[in-house]
Amino acid sequence: MPRLDFWYEFASTYSYLAAMRIAPLAKEAGVEVRWRPFLLGPIFKAQGMETSPFNIYPLKGKYMWRDMARWSELLKLPEFVPPKTFPAHPLGASRVALALDDAARPDFTRAIYQAEFNEGKDIADAATIGEVLKKLGFDAAAVIAKGGEPAVKDKLRANTEEAAKLDIFGAPNFVTADGELFWGNDRLEQALAWARKH
Amino acid sequence: MPRLDFWYEFASTYSYLAAMRIAPLAKEAGVEVRWRPFLLGPIFKAQGMETSPFNIYPLKGKYMWRDMARWSELLKLPEFVPPKTFPAHPLGASRVALALDDAARPDFTRAIYQAEFNEGKDIADAATIGEVLKKLGFDAAAVIAKGGEPAVKDKLRANTEEAAKLDIFGAPNFVTADGELFWGNDRLEQALAWARKH
Repeated sequence: MPRLDFWYEFASTYSYLAAMRIAPLAKEAGVEVRWRPFLLGPIFKAQGMETSPFNIYPLKGKYMWRDMARWSELLKLPEFVPPKTFPAHPLGASRVALALDDAARPDFTRAIYQAEFNEGKDIADAATIGEVLKKLGFDAAAVIAKGGEPAVKDKLRANTEEAAKLDIFGAPNFVTADGELFWGNDRLEQALAWARKH
Repeated sequence: MPRLDFWYEFASTYSYLAAMRIAPLAKEAGVEVRWRPFLLGPIFKAQGMETSPFNIYPLKGKYMWRDMARWSELLKLPEFVPPKTFPAHPLGASRVALALDDAARPDFTRAIYQAEFNEGKDIADAATIGEVLKKLGFDAAAVIAKGGEPAVKDKLRANTEEAAKLDIFGAPNFVTADGELFWGNDRLEQALAWARKH
Protein backbone atom coordinates (compact mmCIF):
# COMPACT_ATOMS: atom_id res chain seq x y z
CA MET A 1 0.00 0.00 0.00
CA PRO A 2 1.43 3.43 -0.93
CA ARG A 3 2.34 5.57 2.06
CA LEU A 4 2.31 9.29 2.80
CA ASP A 5 3.82 11.01 5.82
CA PHE A 6 1.60 13.88 6.95
CA TRP A 7 3.80 16.41 8.76
CA TYR A 8 1.70 18.85 10.74
CA GLU A 9 2.00 21.43 13.50
CA PHE A 10 -0.65 22.14 16.10
CA ALA A 11 -0.42 25.94 15.77
CA SER A 12 -0.61 25.83 11.97
CA THR A 13 -3.88 26.91 10.39
CA TYR A 14 -3.28 25.20 7.06
CA SER A 15 -2.30 22.01 8.91
CA TYR A 16 -5.76 22.14 10.47
CA LEU A 17 -7.41 22.19 7.04
CA ALA A 18 -5.27 19.27 5.88
CA ALA A 19 -5.99 17.29 9.06
CA MET A 20 -9.73 17.70 8.58
CA ARG A 21 -9.72 16.34 5.04
CA ILE A 22 -6.77 13.96 4.60
CA ALA A 23 -8.33 10.74 5.98
CA PRO A 24 -11.22 10.27 3.52
CA LEU A 25 -9.12 11.42 0.54
CA ALA A 26 -6.28 9.03 1.43
CA LYS A 27 -8.72 6.17 1.94
CA GLU A 28 -10.27 6.81 -1.47
CA ALA A 29 -6.79 6.92 -3.02
CA GLY A 30 -5.72 3.74 -1.23
CA VAL A 31 -2.84 5.53 0.51
CA GLU A 32 -1.77 4.87 4.11
CA VAL A 33 -1.12 8.04 6.12
CA ARG A 34 1.37 8.38 8.96
CA TRP A 35 0.49 11.31 11.21
CA ARG A 36 3.74 13.07 12.15
CA PRO A 37 3.46 16.07 14.46
CA PHE A 38 6.55 18.32 14.68
CA LEU A 39 7.45 21.79 15.92
CA LEU A 40 7.75 24.76 13.57
CA GLY A 41 9.59 26.91 16.14
CA PRO A 42 13.06 25.44 15.50
CA ILE A 43 12.33 25.23 11.75
CA PHE A 44 11.44 28.94 11.62
CA LYS A 45 14.39 29.90 13.83
CA ALA A 46 16.82 28.13 11.51
CA GLN A 47 15.49 30.40 8.75
CA GLY A 48 15.92 33.53 10.86
CA MET A 49 12.25 33.86 11.88
CA GLU A 50 11.37 34.33 15.55
CA THR A 51 7.63 33.80 14.99
CA SER A 52 5.18 32.73 12.29
CA PRO A 53 5.63 34.39 8.86
CA PHE A 54 1.96 35.38 9.21
CA ASN A 55 3.01 37.64 12.09
CA ILE A 56 6.25 38.83 10.47
CA TYR A 57 4.38 39.79 7.28
CA PRO A 58 1.03 41.26 8.41
CA LEU A 59 -0.52 41.50 4.93
CA LYS A 60 0.15 37.80 4.44
CA GLY A 61 -1.36 37.16 7.87
CA LYS A 62 -4.47 39.19 7.07
CA TYR A 63 -4.89 37.24 3.85
CA MET A 64 -4.45 33.90 5.64
CA TRP A 65 -7.31 34.62 8.08
CA ARG A 66 -9.60 35.46 5.18
CA ASP A 67 -8.43 32.38 3.28
CA MET A 68 -9.25 30.23 6.34
CA ALA A 69 -12.82 31.55 6.41
CA ARG A 70 -13.23 30.79 2.69
CA TRP A 71 -11.71 27.28 2.94
CA SER A 72 -13.85 26.47 5.97
CA GLU A 73 -16.94 27.29 3.94
CA LEU A 74 -15.75 25.31 0.92
CA LEU A 75 -14.93 22.26 3.05
CA LYS A 76 -18.14 22.64 5.07
CA LEU A 77 -16.16 22.85 8.30
CA PRO A 78 -17.55 24.61 11.40
CA GLU A 79 -17.04 28.38 11.48
CA PHE A 80 -13.37 29.30 11.67
CA VAL A 81 -12.56 31.25 14.85
CA PRO A 82 -9.05 32.80 14.94
CA PRO A 83 -7.40 31.93 18.26
CA LYS A 84 -6.68 34.74 20.73
CA THR A 85 -2.96 33.95 20.62
CA PHE A 86 -1.35 33.07 17.32
CA PRO A 87 0.66 30.96 16.99
CA ALA A 88 -0.54 28.92 19.98
CA HIS A 89 2.12 27.10 21.97
CA PRO A 90 2.02 23.58 20.48
CA LEU A 91 4.40 21.71 22.78
CA GLY A 92 1.91 20.04 25.14
CA ALA A 93 -0.53 18.91 22.45
CA SER A 94 2.35 17.60 20.30
CA ARG A 95 3.73 15.49 23.13
CA VAL A 96 0.31 14.08 23.98
CA ALA A 97 -0.25 13.25 20.30
CA LEU A 98 2.95 11.22 20.38
CA ALA A 99 2.09 9.63 23.73
CA LEU A 100 -0.99 8.14 22.04
CA ASP A 101 -0.56 5.21 19.67
CA ASP A 102 -0.70 5.69 15.89
CA ALA A 103 -4.35 4.64 15.61
CA ALA A 104 -5.52 7.17 18.21
CA ARG A 105 -3.50 10.13 16.92
CA PRO A 106 -5.79 11.25 14.04
CA ASP A 107 -8.89 11.64 16.26
CA PHE A 108 -6.92 13.45 18.95
CA THR A 109 -5.32 15.74 16.37
CA ARG A 110 -8.64 16.71 14.79
CA ALA A 111 -10.23 17.31 18.20
CA ILE A 112 -7.37 19.58 19.28
CA TYR A 113 -7.65 21.56 16.03
CA GLN A 114 -11.39 21.96 16.57
CA ALA A 115 -10.83 23.23 20.11
CA GLU A 116 -8.22 25.66 18.75
CA PHE A 117 -9.83 26.92 15.55
CA ASN A 118 -13.56 26.42 16.09
CA GLU A 119 -14.09 26.68 19.85
CA GLY A 120 -11.67 29.50 20.71
CA LYS A 121 -9.78 27.43 23.26
CA ASP A 122 -6.10 27.75 24.16
CA ILE A 123 -4.39 24.46 23.33
CA ALA A 124 -1.41 25.47 25.46
CA ASP A 125 -3.72 25.03 28.46
CA ALA A 126 -3.50 21.52 29.92
CA ALA A 127 -7.21 21.79 30.75
CA THR A 128 -8.05 22.03 27.03
CA ILE A 129 -5.94 18.96 26.25
CA GLY A 130 -7.50 17.12 29.19
CA GLU A 131 -11.05 17.87 28.02
CA VAL A 132 -10.25 16.64 24.52
CA LEU A 133 -8.77 13.40 25.90
CA LYS A 134 -11.74 12.83 28.18
CA LYS A 135 -14.22 13.36 25.33
CA LEU A 136 -12.33 10.73 23.32
CA GLY A 137 -12.57 8.28 26.23
CA PHE A 138 -8.98 8.41 27.47
CA ASP A 139 -7.69 8.62 31.03
CA ALA A 140 -6.62 12.23 30.58
CA ALA A 141 -4.26 12.45 33.55
CA ALA A 142 -2.45 9.25 32.55
CA VAL A 143 -1.97 10.29 28.91
CA ILE A 144 -0.81 13.79 29.84
CA ALA A 145 1.66 12.24 32.31
CA LYS A 146 2.95 9.93 29.58
CA GLY A 147 3.41 12.98 27.35
CA GLY A 148 5.90 14.29 29.90
CA GLU A 149 8.09 11.18 29.82
CA PRO A 150 11.59 11.50 28.30
CA ALA A 151 10.86 8.87 25.62
CA VAL A 152 7.94 10.92 24.28
CA LYS A 153 9.86 14.20 24.48
CA ASP A 154 12.65 12.52 22.49
CA LYS A 155 10.16 11.34 19.88
CA LEU A 156 8.97 14.90 19.27
CA ARG A 157 12.55 16.16 19.11
CA ALA A 158 13.41 13.38 16.64
CA ASN A 159 10.37 14.24 14.49
CA THR A 160 11.39 17.88 14.34
CA GLU A 161 14.98 16.95 13.47
CA GLU A 162 13.75 14.61 10.73
CA ALA A 163 11.53 17.40 9.37
CA ALA A 164 14.56 19.67 9.16
CA LYS A 165 16.51 16.96 7.32
CA LEU A 166 13.68 16.70 4.81
CA ASP A 167 14.14 20.44 4.04
CA ILE A 168 10.73 21.19 5.55
CA PHE A 169 10.33 24.96 6.05
CA GLY A 170 6.62 25.32 6.91
CA ALA A 171 3.48 23.25 7.47
CA PRO A 172 1.66 21.14 6.58
CA ASN A 173 3.75 18.84 4.40
CA PHE A 174 3.19 15.53 2.70
CA VAL A 175 6.22 13.35 2.03
CA THR A 176 6.01 10.25 -0.13
CA ALA A 177 7.94 7.02 0.42
CA ASP A 178 10.37 8.04 -2.35
CA GLY A 179 11.09 11.33 -0.53
CA GLU A 180 9.04 13.78 -2.59
CA LEU A 181 8.06 16.82 -0.49
CA PHE A 182 4.73 18.61 -0.98
CA TRP A 183 4.10 21.74 1.07
CA GLY A 184 0.68 23.14 1.86
CA ASN A 185 -2.88 21.97 2.31
CA ASP A 186 -3.45 22.81 -1.36
CA ARG A 187 -0.90 20.17 -2.45
CA LEU A 188 -2.67 17.25 -0.77
CA GLU A 189 -4.24 15.93 -3.97
CA GLN A 190 -0.93 16.13 -5.87
CA ALA A 191 0.85 14.33 -3.02
CA LEU A 192 -1.70 11.51 -2.97
CA ALA A 193 -1.43 11.11 -6.75
CA TRP A 194 2.37 11.01 -6.48
CA ALA A 195 2.23 8.41 -3.68
CA ARG A 196 0.05 6.16 -5.86
CA LYS A 197 2.16 6.58 -8.98
CA HIS A 198 5.68 6.18 -7.53
CA MET B 1 -20.22 38.87 -17.66
CA PRO B 2 -18.33 38.22 -14.41
CA ARG B 3 -14.86 39.76 -14.33
CA LEU B 4 -11.55 38.80 -12.76
CA ASP B 5 -8.44 40.96 -12.52
CA PHE B 6 -5.32 38.87 -13.04
CA TRP B 7 -2.44 40.60 -11.24
CA TYR B 8 0.88 39.20 -12.37
CA GLU B 9 4.58 39.98 -12.30
CA PHE B 10 7.04 39.10 -15.05
CA ALA B 11 9.71 37.73 -12.67
CA SER B 12 7.21 35.58 -10.75
CA THR B 13 7.33 31.84 -11.41
CA TYR B 14 3.83 31.13 -10.12
CA SER B 15 2.51 34.02 -12.23
CA TYR B 16 3.92 32.16 -15.22
CA LEU B 17 1.91 29.04 -14.36
CA ALA B 18 -1.25 31.10 -13.94
CA ALA B 19 -0.67 32.98 -17.20
CA MET B 20 -0.32 29.71 -19.12
CA ARG B 21 -3.62 28.30 -17.90
CA ILE B 22 -5.99 31.17 -17.05
CA ALA B 23 -7.42 31.88 -20.53
CA PRO B 24 -9.09 28.51 -21.28
CA LEU B 25 -10.31 28.10 -17.68
CA ALA B 26 -11.83 31.60 -17.65
CA LYS B 27 -13.45 31.03 -21.03
CA GLU B 28 -15.01 27.80 -19.79
CA ALA B 29 -16.25 29.58 -16.65
CA GLY B 30 -17.63 32.52 -18.68
CA VAL B 31 -15.42 35.00 -16.82
CA GLU B 32 -13.71 37.98 -18.47
CA VAL B 33 -10.07 38.43 -17.45
CA ARG B 34 -8.23 41.74 -17.25
CA TRP B 35 -4.46 41.23 -17.45
CA ARG B 36 -2.83 43.58 -14.93
CA PRO B 37 0.97 43.54 -14.77
CA PHE B 38 2.54 45.21 -11.73
CA LEU B 39 5.90 45.32 -9.96
CA LEU B 40 6.64 43.22 -6.89
CA GLY B 41 9.75 45.22 -5.96
CA PRO B 42 7.89 48.05 -4.17
CA ILE B 43 5.40 45.54 -2.70
CA PHE B 44 8.24 43.47 -1.22
CA LYS B 45 10.11 46.57 -0.02
CA ALA B 46 7.05 47.82 1.87
CA GLN B 47 7.14 44.49 3.76
CA GLY B 48 10.85 44.83 4.55
CA MET B 49 12.10 42.48 1.83
CA GLU B 50 14.88 43.59 -0.51
CA THR B 51 14.46 40.64 -2.87
CA SER B 52 12.14 37.70 -3.53
CA PRO B 53 11.16 35.61 -0.47
CA PHE B 54 12.50 32.64 -2.49
CA ASN B 55 15.97 34.17 -2.17
CA ILE B 56 15.53 35.35 1.43
CA TYR B 57 14.40 31.86 2.51
CA PRO B 58 16.57 29.39 0.54
CA LEU B 59 14.65 26.25 1.59
CA LYS B 60 11.47 27.81 0.29
CA GLY B 61 13.31 28.73 -2.89
CA LYS B 62 14.63 25.21 -3.36
CA TYR B 63 11.11 23.86 -2.90
CA MET B 64 9.68 26.34 -5.40
CA TRP B 65 12.05 25.22 -8.19
CA ARG B 66 11.05 21.60 -7.60
CA ASP B 67 7.37 22.59 -7.47
CA MET B 68 7.77 24.37 -10.83
CA ALA B 69 9.15 21.21 -12.45
CA ARG B 70 6.23 19.17 -11.08
CA TRP B 71 3.58 21.72 -12.11
CA SER B 72 5.09 22.02 -15.59
CA GLU B 73 4.70 18.28 -16.03
CA LEU B 74 1.14 18.27 -14.66
CA LEU B 75 0.11 21.14 -16.94
CA LYS B 76 2.00 19.64 -19.92
CA LEU B 77 4.03 22.81 -20.32
CA PRO B 78 7.47 22.78 -21.95
CA GLU B 79 10.36 21.87 -19.64
CA PHE B 80 10.85 24.45 -16.90
CA VAL B 81 14.29 26.07 -17.08
CA PRO B 82 15.21 28.24 -14.06
CA PRO B 83 16.50 31.61 -15.29
CA LYS B 84 20.17 32.47 -14.70
CA THR B 85 19.15 35.54 -12.68
CA PHE B 86 16.21 35.30 -10.31
CA PRO B 87 14.20 37.41 -9.97
CA ALA B 88 14.68 38.82 -13.46
CA HIS B 89 14.33 42.58 -13.84
CA PRO B 90 10.69 42.97 -14.97
CA LEU B 91 10.52 46.70 -15.71
CA GLY B 92 10.99 46.67 -19.50
CA ALA B 93 8.63 43.78 -20.19
CA SER B 94 5.99 45.27 -17.86
CA ARG B 95 6.07 48.61 -19.67
CA VAL B 96 5.84 46.98 -23.09
CA ALA B 97 2.91 44.85 -21.87
CA LEU B 98 1.11 48.07 -20.96
CA ALA B 99 2.12 49.77 -24.21
CA LEU B 100 0.18 47.06 -26.05
CA ASP B 101 -3.60 47.14 -26.05
CA ASP B 102 -5.64 44.84 -23.80
CA ALA B 103 -6.29 42.29 -26.55
CA ALA B 104 -2.59 41.88 -27.38
CA ARG B 105 -1.34 41.67 -23.78
CA PRO B 106 -2.11 37.98 -23.06
CA ASP B 107 -0.10 36.65 -26.05
CA PHE B 108 2.81 38.97 -25.29
CA THR B 109 2.76 37.97 -21.62
CA ARG B 110 2.79 34.25 -22.36
CA ALA B 111 5.58 34.65 -24.92
CA ILE B 112 7.74 36.61 -22.45
CA TYR B 113 7.20 33.93 -19.79
CA GLN B 114 8.18 31.22 -22.26
CA ALA B 115 11.37 33.10 -23.17
CA GLU B 116 12.12 33.50 -19.44
CA PHE B 117 11.19 30.10 -18.05
CA ASN B 118 11.49 27.71 -21.00
CA GLU B 119 14.14 29.22 -23.27
CA GLY B 120 16.61 30.52 -20.67
CA LYS B 121 16.49 34.09 -21.97
CA ASP B 122 16.97 37.26 -19.93
CA ILE B 123 13.78 39.30 -20.16
CA ALA B 124 15.63 42.36 -18.86
CA ASP B 125 17.43 42.37 -22.23
CA ALA B 126 15.67 44.59 -24.79
CA ALA B 127 16.77 42.09 -27.47
CA THR B 128 14.64 39.36 -25.83
CA ILE B 129 11.61 41.66 -25.71
CA GLY B 130 12.24 42.72 -29.32
CA GLU B 131 12.37 39.10 -30.53
CA VAL B 132 9.12 38.28 -28.77
CA LEU B 133 7.40 41.31 -30.30
CA LYS B 134 8.70 40.47 -33.79
CA LYS B 135 7.52 36.86 -33.52
CA LEU B 136 4.05 38.17 -32.61
CA GLY B 137 4.06 40.43 -35.69
CA PHE B 138 4.62 43.79 -34.01
CA ASP B 139 6.94 46.62 -35.01
CA ALA B 140 9.30 45.88 -32.13
CA ALA B 141 11.14 49.21 -32.12
CA ALA B 142 7.89 51.19 -32.15
CA VAL B 143 6.30 49.24 -29.30
CA ILE B 144 9.48 49.37 -27.18
CA ALA B 145 9.64 53.14 -27.79
CA LYS B 146 6.01 53.49 -26.72
CA GLY B 147 6.87 51.52 -23.55
CA GLY B 148 9.26 54.34 -22.64
CA GLU B 149 6.63 57.09 -22.87
CA PRO B 150 5.56 58.81 -19.64
CA ALA B 151 1.92 57.75 -20.04
CA VAL B 152 2.90 54.08 -20.07
CA LYS B 153 5.35 54.47 -17.19
CA ASP B 154 2.55 56.13 -15.21
CA LYS B 155 0.21 53.26 -16.02
CA LEU B 156 2.64 50.73 -14.53
CA ARG B 157 3.18 52.92 -11.47
CA ALA B 158 -0.61 53.26 -11.06
CA ASN B 159 -1.06 49.48 -11.36
CA THR B 160 1.53 48.87 -8.67
CA GLU B 161 -0.05 51.47 -6.38
CA GLU B 162 -3.47 49.90 -6.93
CA ALA B 163 -2.02 46.47 -6.10
CA ALA B 164 -0.69 47.85 -2.82
CA LYS B 165 -4.12 49.33 -2.02
CA LEU B 166 -5.66 45.90 -2.59
CA ASP B 167 -3.33 44.51 0.13
CA ILE B 168 -1.49 42.45 -2.47
CA PHE B 169 1.74 41.06 -0.98
CA GLY B 170 2.91 38.57 -3.64
CA ALA B 171 1.99 37.21 -7.07
CA PRO B 172 -0.02 36.08 -8.88
CA ASN B 173 -3.36 37.35 -7.58
CA PHE B 174 -6.93 37.20 -8.79
CA VAL B 175 -9.30 39.94 -7.65
CA THR B 176 -13.03 39.72 -8.27
CA ALA B 177 -15.34 42.65 -9.07
CA ASP B 178 -16.53 42.64 -5.43
CA GLY B 179 -12.93 42.99 -4.21
CA GLU B 180 -12.17 39.45 -3.08
CA LEU B 181 -8.43 38.73 -3.22
CA PHE B 182 -7.08 35.29 -4.13
CA TRP B 183 -3.32 34.78 -3.97
CA GLY B 184 -1.42 32.09 -5.84
CA ASN B 185 -1.71 30.02 -8.98
CA ASP B 186 -3.36 27.33 -6.87
CA ARG B 187 -6.29 29.62 -6.07
CA LEU B 188 -7.29 30.25 -9.70
CA GLU B 189 -10.20 27.79 -9.64
CA GLN B 190 -11.57 29.23 -6.38
CA ALA B 191 -11.30 32.75 -7.78
CA LEU B 192 -13.18 31.85 -10.96
CA ALA B 193 -15.92 30.17 -8.92
CA TRP B 194 -16.17 33.25 -6.70
CA ALA B 195 -16.37 35.58 -9.71
CA ARG B 196 -19.27 33.55 -11.12
CA LYS B 197 -21.13 33.33 -7.83
CA HIS B 198 -20.84 36.93 -6.57
